Amino acid sequence: MSTPTQDRWSVDLNSDLGESYGAFSIGADTELFALISSANVACGFHGGDPRVIERTVAAAAAHGVAVGAHPGFLDLAGFGRRAIAATPDEVRTDTLYQLGALDAFCRVAGVRLQHVKAHGALYNVAVADPAIAGAIAAAVHAYDPSLIFLGQPGTALLAAGEAAGLPIAREGFADRAYNVNGTLVSRQLPGAVITDPEAAAARMVRLVTEGRLTTIDGQELRLEVDSICIHSDTPTAAAIAVAIRRHFTAAGITVRALRDR
Amino acid sequence: MSTPTQDRWSVDLNSDLGESYGAFSIGADTELFALISSANVACGFHGGDPRVIERTVAAAAAHGVAVGAHPGFLDLAGFGRRAIAATPDEVRTDTLYQLGALDAFCRVAGVRLQHVKAHGALYNVAVADPAIAGAIAAAVHAYDPSLIFLGQPGTALLAAGEAAGLPIAREGFADRAYNVNGTLVSRQLPGAVITDPEAAAARMVRLVTEGRLTTIDGQELRLEVDSICIHSDTPTAAAIAVAIRRHFTAAGITVRALRDR
Amino acid sequence: MSTPTQDRWSVDLNSDLGESYGAFSIGADTELFALISSANVACGFHGGDPRVIERTVAAAAAHGVAVGAHPGFLDLAGFGRRAIAATPDEVRTDTLYQLGALDAFCRVAGVRLQHVKAHGALYNVAVADPAIAGAIAAAVHAYDPSLIFLGQPGTALLAAGEAAGLPIAREGFADRAYNVNGTLVSRQLPGAVITDPEAAAARMVRLVTEGRLTTIDGQELRLEVDSICIHSDTPTAAAIAVAIRRHFTAAGITVRALRDR
Amino acid sequence: MSTPTQDRWSVDLNSDLGESYGAFSIGADTELFALISSANVACGFHGGDPRVIERTVAAAAAHGVAVGAHPGFLDLAGFGRRAIAATPDEVRTDTLYQLGALDAFCRVAGVRLQHVKAHGALYNVAVADPAIAGAIAAAVHAYDPSLIFLGQPGTALLAAGEAAGLPIAREGFADRAYNVNGTLVSRQLPGAVITDPEAAAARMVRLVTEGRLTTIDGQELRLEVDSICIHSDTPTAAAIAVAIRRHFTAAGITVRALRDR
Repeated sequence: MSTPTQDRWSVDLNSDLGESYGAFSIGADTELFALISSANVACGFHGGDPRVIERTVAAAAAHGVAVGAHPGFLDLAGFGRRAIAATPDEVRTDTLYQLGALDAFCRVAGVRLQHVKAHGALYNVAVADPAIAGAIAAAVHAYDPSLIFLGQPGTALLAAGEAAGLPIAREGFADRAYNVNGTLVSRQLPGAVITDPEAAAARMVRLVTEGRLTTIDGQELRLEVDSICIHSDTPTAAAIAVAIRRHFTAAGITVRALRDR
Repeated sequence: MSTPTQDRWSVDLNSDLGESYGAFSIGADTELFALISSANVACGFHGGDPRVIERTVAAAAAHGVAVGAHPGFLDLAGFGRRAIAATPDEVRTDTLYQLGALDAFCRVAGVRLQHVKAHGALYNVAVADPAIAGAIAAAVHAYDPSLIFLGQPGTALLAAGEAAGLPIAREGFADRAYNVNGTLVSRQLPGAVITDPEAAAARMVRLVTEGRLTTIDGQELRLEVDSICIHSDTPTAAAIAVAIRRHFTAAGITVRALRDR
Repeated sequence: MSTPTQDRWSVDLNSDLGESYGAFSIGADTELFALISSANVACGFHGGDPRVIERTVAAAAAHGVAVGAHPGFLDLAGFGRRAIAATPDEVRTDTLYQLGALDAFCRVAGVRLQHVKAHGALYNVAVADPAIAGAIAAAVHAYDPSLIFLGQPGTALLAAGEAAGLPIAREGFADRAYNVNGTLVSRQLPGAVITDPEAAAARMVRLVTEGRLTTIDGQELRLEVDSICIHSDTPTAAAIAVAIRRHFTAAGITVRALRDR
Repeated sequence: MSTPTQDRWSVDLNSDLGESYGAFSIGADTELFALISSANVACGFHGGDPRVIERTVAAAAAHGVAVGAHPGFLDLAGFGRRAIAATPDEVRTDTLYQLGALDAFCRVAGVRLQHVKAHGALYNVAVADPAIAGAIAAAVHAYDPSLIFLGQPGTALLAAGEAAGLPIAREGFADRAYNVNGTLVSRQLPGAVITDPEAAAARMVRLVTEGRLTTIDGQELRLEVDSICIHSDTPTAAAIAVAIRRHFTAAGITVRALRDR
């Protein structure tokens, strides 16, 4: 939630990082680390081998960026973007496995794990499926009930985190158009993705300072968020982050990790 | 080390368990859990998916069997039995990843991880390669310096654990013949594997009570061990464990996990 | 189709074989090879590594059993039993890859690939999804339009094979109860699985000789099949196959591979 | 071999392509396809999923570039660059599997597979290990004895291809310094890699027209090659290929696929 305390406004910026795998590089990690406050770090199932994880946790620490776990479906070929009809028990145990694996690197690096955000298709399934959402939340709560559960407000995903008693954080999307009911416009539809950095940044300033967004059909949507997601896999990701930082500075918005808010 | 304290003698019995993977079952876990004191639990790289890990940790807890991590090379097709020319950095980070993943299930189950024993080809490479042995030990020490490092005495593997400042435990092999220098007779040679449960058990009684073994060529070998490994992948594994238990009871040897010795 | 030519009746018996993977053994291949006429051989994505494939093709040849490809989703952890939201293009190309890989072993062994049957979740998805069914059929047709496309009659799967111009074969299930509309009773419901070998065999005799089955609710279902599937992953699979063979001999039904009918 | 027939000289240019995997892109395929005559196409074990394979075969066909199989160790995490202590039987069957998988896409595209070149660590192991080299050659010969076996002259790899009765092709390396015995200078040593496109191109002109190279220590090495490898994973790969093409045109050297020589 944007909190006008000592700062007038503050918000977290999150991005998916550490998704490279062995010789396969992906993402604009180097540029983004200087611009965000929370990194969702891949845990090995959709990307992120142990060397990448270690480097990513170290880079996050060096930049003062908080680390979150970014568990996904076990699907390297599909980059975790294809729903797998896994049972809740499979999702719960796969999540727990990934949390522990990532956290080993955090603990060794002296970094405290801040949050958990499901990746790709796991996120998308959990947004609509309370059983899968509950499985993720159960794994997180069992592992460490102080972990912040990050997701889209108004969804089964975030409701499950709340029901499990986890601290939750609500995220908005810098590069996506919204429907009037608060859902995202499908990527299949024209105008769904906002690629112009200036337009995206202006929308996010208004979201943080006024709690409002203009929807795809020109209506007003009230929305409160604690974090803004910058999708790292769009070519303009770094440009959007740069524009957001510039607009935020001008508007007096502080970028601050979830743990510091 | 066999400790004639309140018991005249005691020793740990360890076995590799939890190596099944999804629909693929392997090993005699059910029989062995009732007979051993320490389980080396597969961590997902050569066997052991998250459901198997959770069930195995729960079964260990139910049987009062201590849990150890059993990290291996990332080689499901080869069951971790083929050496991979990985760098020490790859071995260190792969080990750390596997430790954290397994430990997540231990922590959630309220089980304290007791020890680490490398699996298959990783063990065999580390026995002779100080850099790889050091990489495993470095991962274990960085993760938790109180973890017991289990391996064959007189090898680079155990030397690395000792050099890293880890508590070490020395293991002997119930079903393997020894050379006079303390190494195992190669499986290629006749007589290398001892499949007769009674013969194996009698050897282990003498090993624990006298610190001696008869080598393949009839000489005497002095050997002190803290744990006896029963290879779970031989058809007679459970029979050997049963015979050892019976002979041990008759000889006044207590079976006790490493943490309790 | 049961063909009362020189034999009064004949039918194919198919089973999923060659699903072991490295050290992980699964299935009753040895018993079943002596009893069936067509083997659906796993192609590496859900089970079946190259050594297993080579052994399985050789065993099929030695037993005079015809070889079919059994492509599945890339999901070793789930044994191909979990639907993956793959695109038709992904299914088509994954199927083509698996066909070529299996066929390499057939060609080297001098075995002509007879048929293709989708595995597990891929089969189940294709039964209801014409786009996925069409993707499988497109891969098969592109690879070799003389391959027999095996599936459940009355489904999108078999319709796609027919639409693609492939020779098709209709299969029935020895161990499953049917609804009156020809679909299988869900495994969640009581009575869905027929485990008694005698009962299963008697049903199959009637299916072949009369083209009729009694449904779960006691009605008559007319059904013509060219092949009977014996699920290899049920404990009674071999016993069911033995009973079927005995009943078939008594009833004058010949077991004959699809290519020979 | 450079053949001064109707052209004064001709040689093949080969490069490793199609090594991307799902969302993970690697290599400069687009640039290189316009410059080379033979593509070594990854087969899925170290890179190259079925979609990538299909696209790569299609691109090769569109550019008139011949297609070869590029089988590697099953090691996506290590990109096939780490030796795995696989048995010859494992190497033979893994190679056969990969040949069939790739060839399925070739057959469907109406492309005739031209050659086989082992990838990464498999190549490097086979250069020195006759049993592994023989296993690769045995798979190729069993699959199709007309396939050209591509490798470094004077090695166990190429000797095995020759012994198996396969047509062989000898390759030189545009970007690597040579020892006087015809082996490559280890990458650990200074001067081992030639990154300057002009220098690399001038060396290759002399290699093709005179059959000579200057070694790392300034001596003359006589060397006959049929193909020149341009390593696709160096940043200057495309620049080297461009320079080679320019120098070759000036020198009257024709670039021609192995099948056309």
